Amino acid sequence: MLDHRPILLFIGSLVSILALGMIIPALVDFAHGNPDWIVFVVSAALTLFVGVLLILASRSGPLRLSIRQAFLMTTVSWIVLPGFAALPFVLADPDIGYTDAYFEAMSGITTTGSTVMTGLDLMPPGLLLWRGVLQWLGGIGIVIMALTVLPMLRVGGMQMFRVEAFETQEKVLPRAAGLASALVLIYVSLTLAWGLMLYGVGMPALDATVHAMTTIATGGYSTRDASVGHFRSLEVDWIVTAGMIVGSIPFLLYLQVVRGRPGLLFRDTQVQWFLGTALAGVVAVAWWLWRDAGMAVPDALRYAAFNTVSVMTGTGYATADYWQWGGLVGGAPVAVLFCLMFVGGCAGSTSCGIKVFRFQILAAMASIQLRRLLQPNGVFIATYNKKPIQEGVAEAVMAFFFMYALSVAFLAMLLGVTGLDYVTALSGAATAISNVGPGLGDIIGPAGNFSTLPDVSKWLLSAGMLLGRLELFTVLVLFLPRFWRD
Amino acid sequence: MLDHRPILLFIGSLVSILALGMIIPALVDFAHGNPDWIVFVVSAALTLFVGVLLILASRSGPLRLSIRQAFLMTTVSWIVLPGFAALPFVLADPDIGYTDAYFEAMSGITTTGSTVMTGLDLMPPGLLLWRGVLQWLGGIGIVIMALTVLPMLRVGGMQMFRVEAFETQEKVLPRAAGLASALVLIYVSLTLAWGLMLYGVGMPALDATVHAMTTIATGGYSTRDASVGHFRSLEVDWIVTAGMIVGSIPFLLYLQVVRGRPGLLFRDTQVQWFLGTALAGVVAVAWWLWRDAGMAVPDALRYAAFNTVSVMTGTGYATADYWQWGGLVGGAPVAVLFCLMFVGGCAGSTSCGIKVFRFQILAAMASIQLRRLLQPNGVFIATYNKKPIQEGVAEAVMAFFFMYALSVAFLAMLLGVTGLDYVTALSGAATAISNVGPGLGDIIGPAGNFSTLPDVSKWLLSAGMLLGRLELFTVLVLFLPRFWRD
Repeated sequence: MLDHRPILLFIGSLVSILALGMIIPALVDFAHGNPDWIVFVVSAALTLFVGVLLILASRSGPLRLSIRQAFLMTTVSWIVLPGFAALPFVLADPDIGYTDAYFEAMSGITTTGSTVMTGLDLMPPGLLLWRGVLQWLGGIGIVIMALTVLPMLRVGGMQMFRVEAFETQEKVLPRAAGLASALVLIYVSLTLAWGLMLYGVGMPALDATVHAMTTIATGGYSTRDASVGHFRSLEVDWIVTAGMIVGSIPFLLYLQVVRGRPGLLFRDTQVQWFLGTALAGVVAVAWWLWRDAGMAVPDALRYAAFNTVSVMTGTGYATADYWQWGGLVGGAPVAVLFCLMFVGGCAGSTSCGIKVFRFQILAAMASIQLRRLLQPNGVFIATYNKKPIQEGVAEAVMAFFFMYALSVAFLAMLLGVTGLDYVTALSGAATAISNVGPGLGDIIGPAGNFSTLPDVSKWLLSAGMLLGRLELFTVLVLFLPRFWRD
Repeated sequence: MLDHRPILLFIGSLVSILALGMIIPALVDFAHGNPDWIVFVVSAALTLFVGVLLILASRSGPLRLSIRQAFLMTTVSWIVLPGFAALPFVLADPDIGYTDAYFEAMSGITTTGSTVMTGLDLMPPGLLLWRGVLQWLGGIGIVIMALTVLPMLRVGGMQMFRVEAFETQEKVLPRAAGLASALVLIYVSLTLAWGLMLYGVGMPALDATVHAMTTIATGGYSTRDASVGHFRSLEVDWIVTAGMIVGSIPFLLYLQVVRGRPGLLFRDTQVQWFLGTALAGVVAVAWWLWRDAGMAVPDALRYAAFNTVSVMTGTGYATADYWQWGGLVGGAPVAVLFCLMFVGGCAGSTSCGIKVFRFQILAAMASIQLRRLLQPNGVFIATYNKKPIQEGVAEAVMAFFFMYALSVAFLAMLLGVTGLDYVTALSGAATAISNVGPGLGDIIGPAGNFSTLPDVSKWLLSAGMLLGRLELFTVLVLFLPRFWRD
């Protein structure tokens, strides 16, 4: 039997933090004279009650985790949290059942950004803020997890970042808690900076707050049905574009910048590849918009940059119904965006997807295979960031890539069984597992919405978001019979 | 400088064989009193002239090939052969330009089965036969290549079959030439058997001949615009279904059966996985056709078996516009068929795709990664066919999988640039590289045709077919600068 007490303690603490997060929208609704503040207070009370109960039930001393406990704790906490985060949606909106609310909460906390809600423009400020807070908490949650839990668990090659994180930690900060606090501080500062910038160019305070939170979290929940496109502002578009890029870079590198070593940020090959890929995608899409859709160069660059970066980083905002660009200029931009959807950002950032470092390792391995064909007995050493790749990392990354493809294929089939057409099923599976947000086609595309899908599809998509956010293996390992044996 | 003489000798020989192949349709057209026999005689003469010239130019003694020469020879020969195979199409049909003819020939010789031709039902017998002969030659060509050249070149894990083939060879047959002859004999016998069966259930002689050739070759060229669906025959459907399965099993195992060891065929795990996957796909699709499309069980099984096996093995026949099943029963069968498209058959068969043994190795590696998460210091040994996987094979297979995904993505983007919509671009890339035949959507789907695509798309698709047929790396290695250095 696994000792469940440390798990209960950890989940109890997270649930309590979530309850505290509910106070923010309660206060805002109260200040706006909106009766929904009661909803948030009730939800917060209920959530805090359970959280405290879990902490008390754990009766645990110092936290010593085995690997199995860490896996179970991680997955269970990301299943339980949306369960409580869904409460305000159910209580505040009579049209929203628990399935929709759970989907919305899971989409929020995994920073996916798929939504079942419409009429955002008329929605009370508390609910809008709650969606933003959820993504914001999910964003910092994954940044800390990527530095602490995932490398320890060696999930999909993440052990590479174990050394890096611990090295840095020893040199710069005495303890992991100190590191986490520093990251939270950076995260808060970036969010504040983007909020002020958006407010500065004329966005109302609530919109600016929510968009700042969901931009840095690469989440994509907006306060408007037309997403960021609603504001029709050149400045807003470019500020948000920059923010999505900032959110997709390893947050640990920002710490290095603050500590006076900005060179590390720009010398990091993962950052270089990420920026290079994004730039190539933007230039290509802009070129088609200019040549075939007749846009002026500044407009083409603006729309291409915003929507390409939004899809690639898995944010999911839109300033255009970009899948319709295919009708104007052929399938090329759609194919580019669809492929970039899988890339995501850097490890240790808020974005999801396969992640840039894995493509670097895959490319290094493929290149070695090619060269080995010519020199079967040659000795080739794969490198990452100019250092040899550690034993076992390449296999882990390649297995991750295979499982990613398999998961998307399998989820697409299951979604097909629930009655979705194949474009919706396939792109829905891809967008859920990559935590992007919108899918392809009329139904779940950037101009559409997930509300009309059958309930069972929503549960499957929620499972897909969880799977993608926790880097597949953290969840899949629980399905091994030997996990439950002693 | 590479010594080009053995390459010229080899290509010259293949070109000469191709010229002899053109005599068959010439004879049939002559017997039918069709003036096209002249076209084939002219094409044959021209092709034979070049072939003999190449052989003479090579002035080569015994064939001793370096690895670089073997790579160059393989790729160049699969580029040159369609160039000559296209001649009869251009000369016989005034509507067909060289681009279309080359596309058709490449699609034939790679056993893809995508076609730009319509009006097959009214086409002279010689041309129909030529399309069949092309696929048939391509089929035996790849079987021999998969046993001789590819394992030597260690392409995508094919070195695994080097040992197997050579072990078998030492025990059973004295020399590689003997092995090849035995395989040709089995290939001819199977084709004859299927031709007689089809003729026996009432198919006209020409149709039976062509369908037998393109079934065993898992090629998919039909003599009818409505493909095998034209014959509306239960017997034909099941005979062809069985033939496509037979064509997707390693031909070396048939040799073992003939030598009195049928057990080896059924104990081979690649065969077991292939049959298991096909069966699962058929049952799933049949279930949907029965439950949601209201088909009777025998009909549901018949249509599901035929079309699922056709897509999975990359044959490309159709007895229904199966992508339209999505409209009847949701996206599930479409998603299943789309995914199976990538699987293909077994290594050493005539079918293409990623191939079953690679999925077995990927699954073994992924399973080890999962178990290693729980026991970071555990020792796990991946096995294939109950033997440990050789050093280097797993990496080669995983790199192959990554390059496959990358190639499909890259080709889809290029096809998008040529103006295709995204469904056509993405499914066209997949169908070309997997050598399946039809794509998705109205344009290139099983009820459609590749003739309306722009010329540049056709050249790109031809390149994709070549890439897929030669297991990617055989072609890609030529793009390494060091390949051309001394």
